[in-house]
Order: sequence, then structure tokens, then C-alpha cells
Amino acid sequence: MAGRVDKTLNANLKVLADKILLGDRRSLARGITLIESVRDDHQDQALVLVETLLPHTGHAIRLGITGTPGAGKSTFIEALGIHVIGDDRKIAVLAVDPSSQRSGGSILGDKTRMQRLSLEKDAFIRPTPAGVTLGGVGRKTREAAILCEAAGFGLIMLETVGVGQSETAVADMVDCFLLLLAPGAGDELQGIKRGIVETADLVLVNKADGNLLPTANLVCADYRAALHLLRPASPVWTPKVLTCSALEGHGIDQVWQTIKQHRLALEQSGELGAKRERQHQSWFWSEIQAGLLDALRQDPTSALLMKDLEHQINAGKTLPPKAARRLINHFRSTGATGTG
Amino acid sequence: MAGRVDKTLNANLKVLADKILLGDRRSLARGITLIESVRDDHQDQALVLVETLLPHTGHAIRLGITGTPGAGKSTFIEALGIHVIGDDRKIAVLAVDPSSQRSGGSILGDKTRMQRLSLEKDAFIRPTPAGVTLGGVGRKTREAAILCEAAGFGLIMLETVGVGQSETAVADMVDCFLLLLAPGAGDELQGIKRGIVETADLVLVNKADGNLLPTANLVCADYRAALHLLRPASPVWTPKVLTCSALEGHGIDQVWQTIKQHRLALEQSGELGAKRERQHQSWFWSEIQAGLLDALRQDPTSALLMKDLEHQINAGKTLPPKAARRLINHFRSTGATGTG
Repeated sequence: MAGRVDKTLNANLKVLADKILLGDRRSLARGITLIESVRDDHQDQALVLVETLLPHTGHAIRLGITGTPGAGKSTFIEALGIHVIGDDRKIAVLAVDPSSQRSGGSILGDKTRMQRLSLEKDAFIRPTPAGVTLGGVGRKTREAAILCEAAGFGLIMLETVGVGQSETAVADMVDCFLLLLAPGAGDELQGIKRGIVETADLVLVNKADGNLLPTANLVCADYRAALHLLRPASPVWTPKVLTCSALEGHGIDQVWQTIKQHRLALEQSGELGAKRERQHQSWFWSEIQAGLLDALRQDPTSALLMKDLEHQINAGKTLPPKAARRLINHFRSTGATGTG
Repeated sequence: MAGRVDKTLNANLKVLADKILLGDRRSLARGITLIESVRDDHQDQALVLVETLLPHTGHAIRLGITGTPGAGKSTFIEALGIHVIGDDRKIAVLAVDPSSQRSGGSILGDKTRMQRLSLEKDAFIRPTPAGVTLGGVGRKTREAAILCEAAGFGLIMLETVGVGQSETAVADMVDCFLLLLAPGAGDELQGIKRGIVETADLVLVNKADGNLLPTANLVCADYRAALHLLRPASPVWTPKVLTCSALEGHGIDQVWQTIKQHRLALEQSGELGAKRERQHQSWFWSEIQAGLLDALRQDPTSALLMKDLEHQINAGKTLPPKAARRLINHFRSTGATGTG
């Protein structure tokens, strides 16, 4: 890979890497832009940059945050972020949004999200393009998180935007996965799939304030009971269920202490290393998926055959699974002369 | 493909196809089991079966149904199903569930779902395995739907189970996509991504009964206003917003009439054919994705190299994106001798 990046460029990348290591936010933003670029030469450079910075990572806490609609995720992230900055850590927020391929964003805009946090000099907030067609949710989020860590951010929050797919993807990139709930009826228990609840290291009932306080306490108790029935995902950590009020700031310190306890438990047991190893395997696998499709699209005769097969499918002359087999067999037969 | 299925087997498949065409439910279930099998020879046979039956399809209405938690999806499907059976159509319900890879199912079991409908002789209810690792949500659902159509089922309901990923997948397999909501606060407007609302041909506010009736009417008006702001996905159909009570049976006939109107609009404009063409292209694409990964896994030297690269990744000697490039290059170089 490095061979494909020339010497001047390598020197420029070295300068960029050094600036990121010094915590320069503009360089960090430039580095993430490089990572997110779909240009081949940018991807080569990005890989060099990430490899250069990788040895300077590993100490930050990677926290995944998901929540049900109306749980107050932005308010919570802002409250936790400001609290953690007070605890002398720089914090980064990266968003992973797989949904709304047609238009992007929720019906109610979120331009006013995290206004307070975005003014903090020790906070870095950046939405990450999902890159769904290029191989899964937040293909580049892992690399963006590595850059943030290298830049000295001690807490990296990966926030799921939208529902579903991104939850599993984010849980697969973080040390600690937090599920935020609103106090509500049993509907929530029906709506949240067991897979997501089981994945959570910390379940948090937000909005435990004012009129909603008694309900929040009930929901908290319900989830404690429900989680009690499930086998914990980790042998060294029993998922915790807590209440908080992001609006009034109650319980935020307890959340942060719990996140740190969780980290300590993972570190002391060696589970942190094992978990990150599993995550690297899963990262490998998703890069394989994305890379295979890129290679197919970039192979000229395969691209031609694909067009032809599309016409045959449209004419009702072949079924998609059958056409796919033909295309794959052709693609493989071209491999010996592939560009490598 | 057919060449890989021998003559006796072909004769057996012919018998199975004939029985399915006669509407025999046990044969239909056997056919779907064949489709869902991961065995290579079964997949070959399934392709022959689907090709044999394909000319006998195209007249059923394929309806996708998704809903927010607590919207009463099962009750609604049951009510609509029984109503449509009364309108002299056989109905099939296929579920697409991408979530909960660890355990499956929601926290509250759904063993008692659709009890009434499952007793109807003109209803066929079958959960479809998601097959997430084998290339996307409900990879085999399209083929299962083709079998149901060939068996004379006039309404095929594809139900999303869980949230997120399956919604886009199901919308991509159906003629008409229905979003079911519960009467609730503005939270729903925040929680449902615009992409899903935009995809819906019919938005339905369920539970428009008793105390919830006024709220249901308000939510219905809200969505009419919201949808008014969005550009319709189809040039020939403006999405409709209706209320109903699946529990009391109110509004179900209007829903069914609207689904039939939608179908008519698509047919008369030629949009139905164009839509199904697009869906076949997308089906082709997902088969390519799944097939490439299958081929990689089945190539002996690639499988060996993958193991080796996994070790290198674990030892911190290489980054997953770099390892993936090496593996793909190797896989392609083996292609000339590939099994085709």
C-alpha cells in the first residue's frame, strides 16, 4: 500500500499525522475527510495515515450510544460530554446513520443538536457518512475513531442515528454499549429486540425528572428484572440499569463512573483485548465484503457482462440468482490477469 | 443450473411444482424449505423449482407491512387477512426478521400471534429465516413469495419483524408498502426516519378506537401534513394516510380498497412493470454480494490465507482493510482455475 503513495505525499502525510497527534482539530477533520473519500489514491493515503497513528491509540474509551425515539439522546450526549470534559478528558462524537438513503435526516430537523457541546474547545463533533453501498454501516467510522484517539480524545462516543442496522454495527466497534430509554409503557419492552438489550452493557432510563420520575423508576425496575433473565454477553460484566435526567443533570456522574468501572473490569480480566480482537476480525470481514464488490465493479469485462445480464433479467430471460452465478464465475475467471 | 439436477430429481421437482400450482399447502411448505436450505444441491433444485413456477406468477398483490413498536401489527395483519379472505383471495404472510442474531424474537414472546388467521384454510403463515450472514435480509423471501403466488395466493404480505434493516429490504420486494403507526405523541415523528415514511404508499394509524380515537385522528392529520411536504416516491401515486381499528374492524375495508386502488394505478400507468424491473435489479445485486462471499469461503487457498491474515490482524501486524485487499487479490488470482 505504502508503495502506492509517493515520497512527497508520504512527507505530507507525516506532517498531517504529527499535527493530529498534537490534537490539532483542523488536521483531525482533514484526516477524517481523507478517510471518507472514495478516491482510490485517497484511500491509499488514508491507510498510511491510519497505520501511522494506530500505535498511538488504545487508551480512549469507545462508547456506543443508541436510544429509542424520544429518549433524548442528543441531550444525554451533551450532558455526558460536558461532564466528562470536566473530568479532564477531551471527547469526540461520531454519528453513524444508515437510514434514509433517499433524503437523510429525520422529519424534524436536528440543526440545533448539541449546541452547548459544540462550543466546547475539548469537544469534537462530526457526523460520519454511512457509506451503505460501499460495504455496510459506517465503514469508515472505525478509522475516524482511531484518528480521534490519536488526537488525544479520551472518550469517543459513537452514536447510532436512525434505527436497526446501525445498532449492531456500532456495538461491534465499541468497548461499552449504552442503550438509552425514555420512561414509557410496556410498549418499549415489545419494541426493543432482545438482541439489542442483550448487547447493552448499560441500560439508562433518561427523563427521570418531574412527573416522569415514578415511571422512570418503574421502567428501570422492569429492565432490571428483564435483564436478570438474560445471560450476560460478557463473563466479567453484568449489565447495569440506571436512571438519569440529562436535562437536570441528575445521575450523569453515576453513568460516567459506571462506564469507567466497566472499562476497568474489561481491562483487569483481559476481556478488553479479546473484545477488540473480535472486533478487528469483524472489521476484516466487512472490508472483504466491500472490497469484493469494488473489485467486481472495477473489472471492465465483468462490468460489461453485468449490463448484459441486467438486460436479460429485465427481459425475463433469466432469474437474478442464476445471473449472479454466471457473473461471479466470469469475474473469477478474469482474476488471473487482475490488477492485483 | 438445470444440468446439475439429474433426471429423476427433475421429475420429482416437476411433481412438486404441479402440486404447488394446485395450491397444496404441504407442497408449498416443502418448496419453501428447499429454498431456505443452505445445501448446494438444494439450492440448485430450488432454482429449477422457482424457474418452473415463475411463469405462473405476477397477478398477486405483494404488500409490505412495517410498524412502530406497539402499533398492533399482528392484530392488523390478522384483521386484513380475514377481510381479504372474505373478498375471495387466499392470503400468505411471510415474516422477515434481520435482528436479534444472538437469540431471536422479542422479549415478550409472540407464540400467540395471529391465532385466528392461522386457523383459516385460505391463509398460509410462515416465518422466513433472515439468512443475514448469507447476504442480506430475507435473501430467500423473494423466492418464497414466488412460490406462494404460484400456489394461488392473491395477497402476499411480507411483514418486517424487528426494526431498521428489514424495512428497506421489504420495501424493495413489494408492490405496495404500508407503514402502521400507533396513535402517540410527536415522538413518532422524530423516531421514524423520513426515508421510511417516504417509502410508504399507505400510512395507517391503527387503534383509532375508544379513548385513542381523537389522538389517532390528530396523528393522521399530522402525517397528512408531513407527507404533503415530501415529494412522492412514485409519479402515479400520492401516499394515503388513513386511520383504522384492527381490534374493532373499523376501516379495514377502506385499507383493502386503497391497496387495490394503488395496484390499479401502478398497473394502468405501467409503473408496476417498471417497479418490478427495478426490484429484480436489486435482487440481482444482493445475489452478487452473497455469491461472492460464498465463493471466497469455498475457495481452499483463500480460506487458508484468510486464517493466516486473521492471525496477523490479531498480532497487530496488519490492519483489517489492508489484509482484506491482500485476500481479495489472492482470491482473484485463483479464479482462472476456479470451479465455475
